[in-house]
Amino acid sequence: MDLQESAYTRSFRPDDEAFGWDGVEVLAYKVDGSAPFRAVTRQVLFEEAEHGCQLRYFEVSPGGHTTLERHQHVHAVLILRGRGSVLIGSEVREIGEHDLCSVPPLTWHQFRAADDAPLGFLCLVSSERDRPQLPSDEDLAALRADPAMAQAIRT
Amino acid sequence: MDLQESAYTRSFRPDDEAFGWDGVEVLAYKVDGSAPFRAVTRQVLFEEAEHGCQLRYFEVSPGGHTTLERHQHVHAVLILRGRGSVLIGSEVREIGEHDLCSVPPLTWHQFRAADDAPLGFLCLVSSERDRPQLPSDEDLAALRADPAMAQAIRT
Repeated sequence: MDLQESAYTRSFRPDDEAFGWDGVEVLAYKVDGSAPFRAVTRQVLFEEAEHGCQLRYFEVSPGGHTTLERHQHVHAVLILRGRGSVLIGSEVREIGEHDLCSVPPLTWHQFRAADDAPLGFLCLVSSERDRPQLPSDEDLAALRADPAMAQAIRT
Repeated sequence: MDLQESAYTRSFRPDDEAFGWDGVEVLAYKVDGSAPFRAVTRQVLFEEAEHGCQLRYFEVSPGGHTTLERHQHVHAVLILRGRGSVLIGSEVREIGEHDLCSVPPLTWHQFRAADDAPLGFLCLVSSERDRPQLPSDEDLAALRADPAMAQAIRT
């Protein structure tokens, strides 16, 4: 039994600085400046043609956040490690290890790590999907009318 | 912020005896007697029509194992907790938290928990998929020709 090489398994590397897996590249979350976000990495764990889906791992560093956005395609999310909060629609909730989140079509959402912990999560999406929409000034004003939402989407 | 009720998130229940989530039913792995297995539960975490995929969580109790089987559809697996071993094709490997496994088409595979730890894993499959095939006596004899494999597929 050779534990170094395998055709079928990829080992998790717990000792690395970047939470990651053998042979899985750590990618930029988005092109810098293309949308507001802070301290997020992206790794594609699985993309099988048969599935028509991608399973990605995102990691938000302490104090960081993903882009506030919406799109037609849905997200199925499992928190893999750490903790933080998630905004979906008009809800803001604390989330932690192994919690599940569903993001319905055209629903504003944003993931945020705690100030003192990272937030790492799996996100399942269709391989073919529409591009995210960013909030207009009008959208932002409407979201900020609720103080809890205004706090949640602070930059 | 109400942490008890949510339209979009399902909380993980760390204090329950069964590793599980709010509103996610714990199902039998298979119909008893339909195929050889031992001490396995199944939970469907996500099944979005748009994805055409199911994300399931399986948990094998200490000393238990899934069915030795193969099928045309592929499995994309992430170990969520615990440890054990996996047989894929002619490989037998130790696996633990956050390791990834790919099971190609028509490839024999079996997951086994350690004697002193459970093995919990996510498994992504197409919603539309073929039924598993069980090994014939001839298949089993061929697999058992390798002593490491014979040990791996012990019942």
